[in-house]
Amino acid sequence: EVTRIINGIPGAEVALFLESLPGEKRNAVWDLVDDASQGDVLVSLHDEVRDNLIEGMDTEQLVEATRDLDLDDMADIIVDLPEEVSNQLILSMDKASRELLDQVLSYPEDSAGGLMNPEVVTVRSDVSVEVVKRYFQFRGVLPTPVGDLFVVGRKGHYKGRVPIATLLTCDPKTPIKDIMDEDALAIPAKTPASEVAQDFEHNDWISAPVVDDKNKLIGRITIDDVVDVIREEAERSVMRMAGLNEEGDMFAPILTSSKRRAIWLGINLLTVLMAAFAIGFFEETLQKVTALAILMPVVASMGGIAGSQTLTLMIRGMATGQVGSGNIKDLLGREFMIGVINSILWAVVLASLTAFWFKNWDISVVIAMALAVNLVAGALAGVVIPVMLRRMSIDPAIAGGVVLTTVTDIVGYVSFLAFGTWLLLG
Amino acid sequence: EVTRIINGIPGAEVALFLESLPGEKRNAVWDLVDDASQGDVLVSLHDEVRDNLIEGMDTEQLVEATRDLDLDDMADIIVDLPEEVSNQLILSMDKASRELLDQVLSYPEDSAGGLMNPEVVTVRSDVSVEVVKRYFQFRGVLPTPVGDLFVVGRKGHYKGRVPIATLLTCDPKTPIKDIMDEDALAIPAKTPASEVAQDFEHNDWISAPVVDDKNKLIGRITIDDVVDVIREEAERSVMRMAGLNEEGDMFAPILTSSKRRAIWLGINLLTVLMAAFAIGFFEETLQKVTALAILMPVVASMGGIAGSQTLTLMIRGMATGQVGSGNIKDLLGREFMIGVINSILWAVVLASLTAFWFKNWDISVVIAMALAVNLVAGALAGVVIPVMLRRMSIDPAIAGGVVLTTVTDIVGYVSFLAFGTWLLLG
Ligand SMILES: [Mg+2]
Ligand SMILES: [Mg+2]
Ligand SMILES: [Mg+2]
Ligand SMILES: [Mg+2]
Ligand SMILES: [Mg+2]
Ligand SMILES: [Mg+2]
Ligand SMILES: [Mg+2]
Ligand SMILES: [Mg+2]
Ligand SMILES: [Mg+2]
Ligand SMILES: [Mg+2]
Ligand SMILES: [Mg+2]
Ligand SMILES: [Mg+2]
Ligand SMILES: [Mg+2]
Repeated sequence: EVTRIINGIPGAEVALFLESLPGEKRNAVWDLVDDASQGDVLVSLHDEVRDNLIEGMDTEQLVEATRDLDLDDMADIIVDLPEEVSNQLILSMDKASRELLDQVLSYPEDSAGGLMNPEVVTVRSDVSVEVVKRYFQFRGVLPTPVGDLFVVGRKGHYKGRVPIATLLTCDPKTPIKDIMDEDALAIPAKTPASEVAQDFEHNDWISAPVVDDKNKLIGRITIDDVVDVIREEAERSVMRMAGLNEEGDMFAPILTSSKRRAIWLGINLLTVLMAAFAIGFFEETLQKVTALAILMPVVASMGGIAGSQTLTLMIRGMATGQVGSGNIKDLLGREFMIGVINSILWAVVLASLTAFWFKNWDISVVIAMALAVNLVAGALAGVVIPVMLRRMSIDPAIAGGVVLTTVTDIVGYVSFLAFGTWLLLG
Repeated sequence: EVTRIINGIPGAEVALFLESLPGEKRNAVWDLVDDASQGDVLVSLHDEVRDNLIEGMDTEQLVEATRDLDLDDMADIIVDLPEEVSNQLILSMDKASRELLDQVLSYPEDSAGGLMNPEVVTVRSDVSVEVVKRYFQFRGVLPTPVGDLFVVGRKGHYKGRVPIATLLTCDPKTPIKDIMDEDALAIPAKTPASEVAQDFEHNDWISAPVVDDKNKLIGRITIDDVVDVIREEAERSVMRMAGLNEEGDMFAPILTSSKRRAIWLGINLLTVLMAAFAIGFFEETLQKVTALAILMPVVASMGGIAGSQTLTLMIRGMATGQVGSGNIKDLLGREFMIGVINSILWAVVLASLTAFWFKNWDISVVIAMALAVNLVAGALAGVVIPVMLRRMSIDPAIAGGVVLTTVTDIVGYVSFLAFGTWLLLG
């Protein structure tokens, strides 16, 4: 029963199901997957889980599972296979396919060249639509999804695209050159995957041609693979903001994960010790007014929240292109105003609460002033920090949060304790 | 020159460019956009920016800009148009289109019915491929992207799909019923958009049929619109984790944004006051050992970082389906082990640093013990909190972070000060 269900759903869903199982059960279910669909499932798994399953398979099984994959998927997986398997896989391919595979592997995994499928159906511009259609029928099978048809010159140079819709609707006698779109440029193989994804999104493409330095057509990228890029990028940016720089963390060995996270904890320790050091300057004040020690976390924490809201907006806006040099100044003014409004609101609330708690209006004034300063500081830091980090070529999604909380912690503690020293002891 | 560039790039890119401009410049550039492309740009803009531009246009311009939009895009935009414009737009449509538009509008925006384009080309199962191809040529234009062809019965009931590749490669005499895929189910109109997106991702679809309660084909969803759903979802989940629950925050009026963010600040104030209240129990200790006041933020902050790493993994894993009831226990054990390893590492480091700073090994022992407790507590809370929130039908992406820092703050402060009271004053 399970076998029947497993083999009736797409490989990507089987992969998710396997990932959601604990280790031992995973191997048991894996054995139920058809040999024919094992390849598709392997392609969709996270590297760490895939490596695990691969370890349990023998060479013959692996060659069987991966032999019929599209060349783009094979390129993704072959680097993770044991050498014996990859050698045998390459030996079982014909020379032409081997060369195509080598071409994909010669580009970085996260570039257009690494994403492309090197097997492309092309047409010449001087034939007619009728000839193309007859050729398709003769060929008997077309790589899916179909998308645009690409037109090349005699030496394989890219000339233009023919939308499949036009091919279906126009008069069969029309020569390809009359319906081909010459303005639609091809994607250079070295284009980063994230740019490829944006091009697909903005142009609503189903497929796009990839060319090498000499404008020779060397492959095509299809939307299904771009969707995977978009999803992975989104995951990665969330992970990065939490200091997890590998998307497969959940499936990595415990020691690997511990090491990755330890780095982040170490950086945070450094920044929070800086804050503690700043607090140290007010030791005398803290001893005399213990209420300040009790309330100390409040101002720092509120500034951190306000700042991280602004920072998140900025990081996402910079990633999508909504935030550019044209509107930074406007945004700074806007966030400043929001900071001021929330300062006033929460300063009043917090002052009342502390007055009620400590029966001491001086403490209320101190905390209200410090809160106002830190909320505004947080908002401004939220705009300025990502801009500065980007100028230094540091990814704001990785470093932004740490730098921001360092600022809001130090401004928060120092302003609170300094106002306290001045008003309560001065 | 600017005009020429603006009108040579896709509407989605013009929209991004407009959003990256400050208010006044935005209107100036908007005037340069061709009347014919203004509709496409409006569709791609965030609601707040779109509303702004719409305010500056007169009825005639707006009707002109939106009249030729696809019905799915028109449905997205019509709800935001002034009543005068939408009335005139509806009047300018023929009765059939008006009914189709009404059908889209009758479903929630974030459901399959709200996403679909109600204009679908369908075929009957008893005709041959040749007849279909001749019909396409006679029709002269096909809605893009082409994707699968949908087969319906005499009363419009959905029967199956024909991949466009098969249509192009098979013998023209083949009847549609021989090449139609009857197993590929249609999407019920009430399916949530996020499920639609997952179906597209897992099945690598270009288009999918949408059916009503009675299995009548009422529209089709295409991958270009699904890509927008995926991107918006990803943005929204990042925003939500920072307590920004509207994706258009950057373009909202200052007061609207202030209000939204104030709520989050208020919730945070409540939790940090709870932490302050807990600290209050140790007032005497703090007065006697000011070193504890100085070091107090360290343990709480480290626990928060460790916990939020685990929490982020859990939230994403639960959203994609990698984390389910099958592997929660395994994950808990795994995160516990990672917590223990990092506890030992950083407890040793922190103990050495504080010994060097305060020349007092007792303080080192106190902070090391508290850190170990809080790192493990953070890791466990990171797993348990999202599971509990989900059981209470609360979105862990929204509430997870606050609940987590409440736990790590209180555990951090209390364990540190309690160990301190016991070892240093006991
Ligand atoms: Mg890999
Ligand atoms: Mg690759
Ligand atoms: Mg690939
Ligand atoms: Mg698009
Ligand atoms: Mg592919
Ligand atoms: Mg694929
Ligand atoms: Mg809307
Ligand atoms: Mg809609
Ligand atoms: Mg839509
Ligand atoms: Mg897919
Ligand atoms: Mg559409
Ligand atoms: Mg569109
Ligand atoms: Mg904190």
